Amino acid sequence: MTNTDLAVHFFAQIAVILVICRVVGVLAAKFGQPQVVAEMIAGVLLGPSLFGLFAPDWQAAIFPWDSTQQSRDTQSYLFPASQLGLALYMFIVGMEFRIDVIRNNLRSSLAVSLAGMAAPFALGAALAAYFHYSTNLFPERTTLNEAMLFLGASMCITAFPMLARIIHFKNLSGTLMGTVAIGAGAIDDVTAWCLLALVLASFDGDPSRAVGTIVGAVLFVAFAALILRPLLARWQHRLLKIEPQDLPPGNPDRAKAASAIKTAKKELTDVGFVVGLVCMSLGAWFTDWLHLHAVFGAFVIGAVMPRGPICEGLVRRIQPLTVALLLPLFFTYSGLNTQIGLLNSWYLWGLCLLVLLVAVIGKGVACYLASRATGLSHQESLGIGTLMNARGLMELIIINIGLQRGIISEELFATLVIMAVVTTLMASPIFDLAMRGTSPDHHRRPRSTVD
Amino acid sequence: MTNTDLAVHFFAQIAVILVICRVVGVLAAKFGQPQVVAEMIAGVLLGPSLFGLFAPDWQAAIFPWDSTQQSRDTQSYLFPASQLGLALYMFIVGMEFRIDVIRNNLRSSLAVSLAGMAAPFALGAALAAYFHYSTNLFPERTTLNEAMLFLGASMCITAFPMLARIIHFKNLSGTLMGTVAIGAGAIDDVTAWCLLALVLASFDGDPSRAVGTIVGAVLFVAFAALILRPLLARWQHRLLKIEPQDLPPGNPDRAKAASAIKTAKKELTDVGFVVGLVCMSLGAWFTDWLHLHAVFGAFVIGAVMPRGPICEGLVRRIQPLTVALLLPLFFTYSGLNTQIGLLNSWYLWGLCLLVLLVAVIGKGVACYLASRATGLSHQESLGIGTLMNARGLMELIIINIGLQRGIISEELFATLVIMAVVTTLMASPIFDLAMRGTSPDHHRRPRSTVD
Repeated sequence: MTNTDLAVHFFAQIAVILVICRVVGVLAAKFGQPQVVAEMIAGVLLGPSLFGLFAPDWQAAIFPWDSTQQSRDTQSYLFPASQLGLALYMFIVGMEFRIDVIRNNLRSSLAVSLAGMAAPFALGAALAAYFHYSTNLFPERTTLNEAMLFLGASMCITAFPMLARIIHFKNLSGTLMGTVAIGAGAIDDVTAWCLLALVLASFDGDPSRAVGTIVGAVLFVAFAALILRPLLARWQHRLLKIEPQDLPPGNPDRAKAASAIKTAKKELTDVGFVVGLVCMSLGAWFTDWLHLHAVFGAFVIGAVMPRGPICEGLVRRIQPLTVALLLPLFFTYSGLNTQIGLLNSWYLWGLCLLVLLVAVIGKGVACYLASRATGLSHQESLGIGTLMNARGLMELIIINIGLQRGIISEELFATLVIMAVVTTLMASPIFDLAMRGTSPDHHRRPRSTVD
Repeated sequence: MTNTDLAVHFFAQIAVILVICRVVGVLAAKFGQPQVVAEMIAGVLLGPSLFGLFAPDWQAAIFPWDSTQQSRDTQSYLFPASQLGLALYMFIVGMEFRIDVIRNNLRSSLAVSLAGMAAPFALGAALAAYFHYSTNLFPERTTLNEAMLFLGASMCITAFPMLARIIHFKNLSGTLMGTVAIGAGAIDDVTAWCLLALVLASFDGDPSRAVGTIVGAVLFVAFAALILRPLLARWQHRLLKIEPQDLPPGNPDRAKAASAIKTAKKELTDVGFVVGLVCMSLGAWFTDWLHLHAVFGAFVIGAVMPRGPICEGLVRRIQPLTVALLLPLFFTYSGLNTQIGLLNSWYLWGLCLLVLLVAVIGKGVACYLASRATGLSHQESLGIGTLMNARGLMELIIINIGLQRGIISEELFATLVIMAVVTTLMASPIFDLAMRGTSPDHHRRPRSTVD
């Protein structure tokens, strides 16, 4: 297939993906589910699990399989676009990240995040040991340690960007519950990525690389927070322009002009936009190069961007196309790799249920208990537990990496996709049930300029 | 190389591309050149012609070459992102297309476009015959007819989106000159694409496919203009929402409510955005499938989108990321294929100069004369000739296709890249010189809501 032939498929794929995502989205909205859940499911439906099962010819025509490469040919098309979409999305999530609120609720965030790591990691690792000895869910190459680390890490994952989106969707961005959940989710995810890095490094047969990865990640975060952040804050006026009509006419005295400049509405310049994109790309490149993942760097860079007109301008320009067009491509890319049909026995479905139970108990219940222990109400704790329990997008990312590198089998991949979808599906209804009768404004705190 | 390794390069590439585009852009702005010209040149500089010549190791590290595939490995990364960017960009250009103004100046537009096709096509075809007999600039597989058609078509090309951008940049969107040039450019480009389709079809060894392509293109345009356009116009209120604060409070009577709805400010919904993207993707897919090119379909769909809040909303959401991030990737993709070093003799540079002369005389001078003949002033005609002469982006697209399919040699490709860059570089200075002393407002007509 030439590039031109591939391009034909690419645009047909985009059309099909967007239509299916919207149709599933309309259905999901009837059940109070956010669009992002619909897109996760739509991705699975477009893959071999449904579309490929009932209309294999049509599925193969739209998402052709290149038998020479042992991979879907057009993945080389969907993959870069979806990677770009993921990085841009995490950049936005980083910019919407409210470090100030985490700091104010540090005790609760830390307690929840610790519980949300220790419990699921321990349970996941135990489950991995069982799977490793008694089933074929891990390929032979994968050692016991790697299996335990990987399944432990993937149980720890919180759908951090999805959690942020659900909180945004439910209009809870400024509440105690929302911010504790976001803070804990962020800490958990960073840790889970470090665990994943350990697995990947040991899988490459070089444990010293794992140390390098973790040292590199710490240095990167330190550089971003201690050098890049103040630098950008100091130079931010160079990335902004003032609309001329907001300046006083004529030639006012200097003090007057200075105060007018201070209060005038500022707008991100084209150069500022490119500077933001370059910082994001460099962050994504560096964390990719460290054998972490591009999304991590994009998030950190987003988190250190100066709040105010710069973040607002960047989000306004990046978000629409990223959320509407590029993210659905990632969900589909992931769904194409998901073969639920591989779970073809009651035994495998039983294991799938076991994974699901361990995931919910390890993450949701543990986070609920930790929230309670730090003094939050039953309702708030239930909300936090439910939000932390949603795995969503990030789980899909981590298990896609695991499948690509051959750490997990396709059966385990399908099982974990189901776990990710179900825990994410659970979030909205349980959350609504928990919140019933309370006004979110009761918990609301002053909102930052960005959310 | 695994997908993950490729992703590392991808983000490094994006950072390098954006930085170089901006640096060249700052230099170009000093000479009154628009950013898009800078990006064209930046693309060539990043390829083997400069970066690869002076720092081959660094160039290979950032844009690695996969020796097994006989192609730059990461083209599989840059290519889809750049194709998506091109289609989105042409969609915007289509939405900014002002069919009403062309209709008002149909005689001038037609005359200019005819001159701008017949002359360069005849000269290009003659040049191709000479090249075919006396040089190695065409591969042996290419027949005389194909060579004449291809070089003729690529001489006809006008940098239609770039022309639109220069007119926008110079604030001439509503002038007679600007609109005649846009109209003529659009007509020429459509014809040139049809000629290219003829070449591609005959090159595939099946002349009946060329007929199919042209019939298909006519049917597609007819469908878009006669069915899709009125349909979208009729249903457009379903794609729009009204901000609640714009409606009268309480429960007003029906007539009052209806008039309030009519005058209220309307905003594109998320569904409307996706509908626009799906239409674009389907158009791009269909014209790709016809063996035209995705950009053609994206443009036609853009041209039939309902003017007003829908086009405004689509452009506002698509434009920033497309222009700042995705288009530079296409320029680089094209630049990576450009090896100016292949022009390694005075003889080849002489041929290059000949191509350039033929291009300028065939297109620029012919369009100037045609404009004069229909009664436009010397100044306006000079402006139109200069704008039509700029080849830019579209020339890069057409010759990239020619190179991919093996119709032209890498030497001729490099020659045509130089022709495209020089004719585009000429546009701004000559245009400014021609316009000196006149206020663009002199020619200005009422602007439509979109431009």
